Amino acid sequence: MITVLVVGTGNVATHLYNAFFNIDNINVSQISSRNLKNIPNTDVTIIAVSDDAIAEVSSKINNPFVVHTSGSISMKNLQNSTRKGVFYMLQTFTKEKKVDFKKVPFCLEAEHKDDLKILKKLAKTLGNSIYTIDSNQRKALHVAAVFVNNFTNHLYKIGHDICLTHNVPFKVLHPLIQETSNKIMSLPPIKAQTGPAIRNDTKTIKNHLTLLEEQQQKIYKILTKSIQDSLNR
Amino acid sequence: MITVLVVGTGNVATHLYNAFFNIDNINVSQISSRNLKNIPNTDVTIIAVSDDAIAEVSSKINNPFVVHTSGSISMKNLQNSTRKGVFYMLQTFTKEKKVDFKKVPFCLEAEHKDDLKILKKLAKTLGNSIYTIDSNQRKALHVAAVFVNNFTNHLYKIGHDICLTHNVPFKVLHPLIQETSNKIMSLPPIKAQTGPAIRNDTKTIKNHLTLLEEQQQKIYKILTKSIQDSLNR
Ligand SMILES: NC(=O)c1ccc[n+]([C@@H]2O[C@H](COP(=O)([O-])OP(=O)(O)OC[C@H]3O[C@@H](n4cnc5c(N)ncnc54)[C@H](OP(=O)(O)O)[C@@H]3O)[C@@H](O)[C@H]2O)c1
Ligand SMILES: NC(=O)c1ccc[n+]([C@@H]2O[C@H](COP(=O)([O-])OP(=O)(O)OC[C@H]3O[C@@H](n4cnc5c(N)ncnc54)[C@H](OP(=O)(O)O)[C@@H]3O)[C@@H](O)[C@H]2O)c1
Repeated sequence: MITVLVVGTGNVATHLYNAFFNIDNINVSQISSRNLKNIPNTDVTIIAVSDDAIAEVSSKINNPFVVHTSGSISMKNLQNSTRKGVFYMLQTFTKEKKVDFKKVPFCLEAEHKDDLKILKKLAKTLGNSIYTIDSNQRKALHVAAVFVNNFTNHLYKIGHDICLTHNVPFKVLHPLIQETSNKIMSLPPIKAQTGPAIRNDTKTIKNHLTLLEEQQQKIYKILTKSIQDSLNR
Repeated sequence: MITVLVVGTGNVATHLYNAFFNIDNINVSQISSRNLKNIPNTDVTIIAVSDDAIAEVSSKINNPFVVHTSGSISMKNLQNSTRKGVFYMLQTFTKEKKVDFKKVPFCLEAEHKDDLKILKKLAKTLGNSIYTIDSNQRKALHVAAVFVNNFTNHLYKIGHDICLTHNVPFKVLHPLIQETSNKIMSLPPIKAQTGPAIRNDTKTIKNHLTLLEEQQQKIYKILTKSIQDSLNR
């Protein structure tokens, strides 16, 4: 039996609490991060609050082992005087949407080996992809996630804009988008690269630029150059 | 019964020929684009050759209705003196990889209504997503595809590079990549946007930039700006 306290009532806290609640060997409780009185003493205390509040909230907790759930905050940011760790799930959580924890990568860190073992045990009750990732690695992962998630979504948005402007249904592009993301499961992205940039197809590139707005052109040019530079390394 | 001739022996020609070969109501034949002698006379002649060769190859064909398969070449580029059209499939074809035509969007164009009907009939024997797309729309679609496919793959590549540099397995990011691409099936990309740029989280953005190489920084900055500008429109 592992006893767990979830601190917070946001997206991550809610999903985590509900998930642990259904696990036999876990005894989970949850409290608001706004009212830190009568804190249950548990094996693991998971602070799932906004990044900026992690330091303050953790400073008020005396439980033996305290972890946060942030991808961008270092373990040392925790201000509890007891043992520290990180329980970061690399996935987007929104309250409305069900989470399939089996697909969520758990990125774990702890000051002490035994604590890392506890976090692994905990993560394994929910998921299959468990990684030991230190604070520096986690920061890198977070930046990489901005590229493959936030920026990729913005490229979808630009594609959507171009379709709107030229009166084409965006859904024509759905299968291509799916194929592009499926490919990296079996092929390193550098090997999956196609298109006018890597073919150095100057004529098509020039044609494309005439169809774009100023900011779209800038993005088109810099990404084209970056693709071409990646060939010469 | 529709009689079809596929001209070319490349990726698209091979997949198309094989697919039509299995359809009862289609009588398909194939010839090389290098040797245009004894050309079978068919209802539809599909020229599936490199973009640059479409004009030349089509100029040598006297069949009644000739179409090409290119996303970036206009219908008028065809040099046959008979009827013209386009049979563009928005998907990546490589010889090794099986194509699920049921998922392929067919983008059709023809000078004459009756020819468009024939192309639709033809496309429907293979697929479910059939669109009438004129040459200007197709050009826009092709540019949009560069953003959502080629450029997106390059962002995956940058994510992969960042992981390599910081010794993190790229596969930690696989589920996030899948989720990002699945989201646009149900949500317009502008509504799916998350991350530090749209939150205007200057602290995180600054932190991220310190972890990146020069060209990665440039891309990070321009995409961040573009995301933020999209809020103000
Ligand atoms: N959402 C995701 O997709 C995701 C994914 C991976 C990791 N994370 C990380 O998980 C943590 C929580 O994220 P979330 O999405 O669950 O956030 P959220 O839904 O915005 O919830 C934030 C929680 O923090 C509390 N809080 C905010 N400021 C506070 C303060 N000054 N003092 C005390 N409590 C405060 C909020 O309480 P009130 O409701 O009372 O304001 C709320 O319970 C963050 O570190 C985040 O980086 C999030
Ligand atoms: N591949 C895709 O993902 C894809 C997707 C949608 C649309 N398309 C379009 O489909 C068409 C064919 O593409 P593909 O990928 O099938 O090309 P491919 O595999 O490179 O095959 C090109 C074909 O064109 C022939 N060819 C090249 N130059 C020629 C010339 N000067 N004279 C006569 N024949 C010539 C080649 O003959 P040799 O083998 O004898 O050189 C070969 O049969 C293009 O318009 C392309 O834009 C391709």
